[in-house]
Amino acid sequence: MKIGLDTLGGDFAPNSTILGAIEAQKMLAEDHRIVLIGDEADAKKRIQEAGIDPALFDYVHAPENIGMHEHPTKAITQKPNSSIAKGFDLLKDGHLDSFASAGNTGAMLVGSMFSVKTVPGVLRPAIATNVPKLKSGFGILLDVGANADCKPEMLNQFALLGSLYSQYVYGVENPKVGLLNIGEEEEKGNILTIATYPLLKANTKINFIGNAEGRDLFTDHADVYVCDGYTGNVVLKLAESFYVVTKKKGFEDDFFGRFDYERYGGSPILGINAPVLIGHGISTPEAIKNMVLFSRDMIQSKFIDRIKSAFN
Amino acid sequence: MKIGLDTLGGDFAPNSTILGAIEAQKMLAEDHRIVLIGDEADAKKRIQEAGIDPALFDYVHAPENIGMHEHPTKAITQKPNSSIAKGFDLLKDGHLDSFASAGNTGAMLVGSMFSVKTVPGVLRPAIATNVPKLKSGFGILLDVGANADCKPEMLNQFALLGSLYSQYVYGVENPKVGLLNIGEEEEKGNILTIATYPLLKANTKINFIGNAEGRDLFTDHADVYVCDGYTGNVVLKLAESFYVVTKKKGFEDDFFGRFDYERYGGSPILGINAPVLIGHGISTPEAIKNMVLFSRDMIQSKFIDRIKSAFN
Repeated sequence: MKIGLDTLGGDFAPNSTILGAIEAQKMLAEDHRIVLIGDEADAKKRIQEAGIDPALFDYVHAPENIGMHEHPTKAITQKPNSSIAKGFDLLKDGHLDSFASAGNTGAMLVGSMFSVKTVPGVLRPAIATNVPKLKSGFGILLDVGANADCKPEMLNQFALLGSLYSQYVYGVENPKVGLLNIGEEEEKGNILTIATYPLLKANTKINFIGNAEGRDLFTDHADVYVCDGYTGNVVLKLAESFYVVTKKKGFEDDFFGRFDYERYGGSPILGINAPVLIGHGISTPEAIKNMVLFSRDMIQSKFIDRIKSAFN
Repeated sequence: MKIGLDTLGGDFAPNSTILGAIEAQKMLAEDHRIVLIGDEADAKKRIQEAGIDPALFDYVHAPENIGMHEHPTKAITQKPNSSIAKGFDLLKDGHLDSFASAGNTGAMLVGSMFSVKTVPGVLRPAIATNVPKLKSGFGILLDVGANADCKPEMLNQFALLGSLYSQYVYGVENPKVGLLNIGEEEEKGNILTIATYPLLKANTKINFIGNAEGRDLFTDHADVYVCDGYTGNVVLKLAESFYVVTKKKGFEDDFFGRFDYERYGGSPILGINAPVLIGHGISTPEAIKNMVLFSRDMIQSKFIDRIKSAFN
């Protein structure tokens, strides 16, 4: 198993990415190799300085970085030696089993769609995030930013992608799918959600339980919450800010603790032909470590095969 | 000054509404009268039982109630003797200076638009809510549910309505207006926000500061956050649920305390020809009291005149 990691992506890279990779490597089986994509000499130097044998890792030299604010499509095209472009090349050609980066989210999306490509039948990939449940465990929210504008058919597919993800990666049996909306009743909503409701209701591949409101997000109401990427992104960033406030104020609690992105490390792009994870820009070594371990879990779950058969 | 209150609206009415009115009356000037709209005999009996002189209030007998789940337009049309229909009749004819209810939100909106009517020039009214700021005070978020689907011109008007509200009711000078969006840059967003941005930028009546993200909502980033009613409603209910969680977990804090709807009592419908406040369905006497006092403040601010001149 080859787990690809962009060592240049993220606000604290390459320090955070190398340190995270070192910690993750200690927890991996012998035949699981982390492939460090970035400045090879610099990575080896840092690993040696940490007292670790550089031979424990594989390397692909790709010294160019795509900045956080660069235009994704332009950057990917004009920087073929960037760590992100290189990572997707390797993933596409089967030299990697997964690819993860805490760098430019847009470039990760563009790379996913134009290099690894969407699973046949999938209209558009979606970014999923987990939302902690008050009692225990996690729900899934998608899309959180890949598609600012959505059509009903897209939300209907996100429902299935989220269901499969909840089932095969989080182990939730027959996950309940809720449509994020502004009322409980079927006829409530905006043009998009009103048109989406009957599609979800008729979708025999999911366990649709109806509308969910903003207040339901952290309850057991549903396991998968579906919405357009604009709404999901606003919700995600709002929820994160709440977590940050409770943390700053010293409110220690299991529920609030589960908001901590460091614990899971990355958000998957669902609907493409390989596991791809996007890390938070401010990823710490702990977050990178967990993103690598989560990459392994995604590969082992054979989740991509499940998606391929479901959309076949 | 005549402050209209629907005594039948809300999950705990008429107990909560009468008790709230009694507490509010104690804090009003002598020439400020609360007009109780609902079952007159029942209201008088309850006030007497509380040891208060019923003559301290005015009454309008309107014994019919519009239930929380009734269809708004149908209910308003078919129940002319309902407290909400009656309240709007009185408001329209100048027998009331404001009207407040913790009842059916949809009926309050329909009554606002078809009876009191929108201010000339205003495309659609919006419901505004306040959002506590971390440091102190409140920001304004609108629309939170009157318009599930919006056009850019509507958001541009909401920006002005929210600005005037922030300035004249909350006393914020030159309030900063942010467009709720999924990135800082001008070109980020969905079709609606991308088309709205240049309108806000060109609007000389507001102090537009650019995009705001979900994480900015509780900061000093802006004083007025503008979005469509679907997004605003999801955000509002999510924020409320966070407050409920912190309360349940015993996290006492000034910031979280300011989420408590009881403290301000109601949300205004902005853009119509009179002050109208919508209370939370679960309004307690304390919430009703504050909604009545807020009605008085709205009247005294002459806020409606400000809107009329701004849209003239």
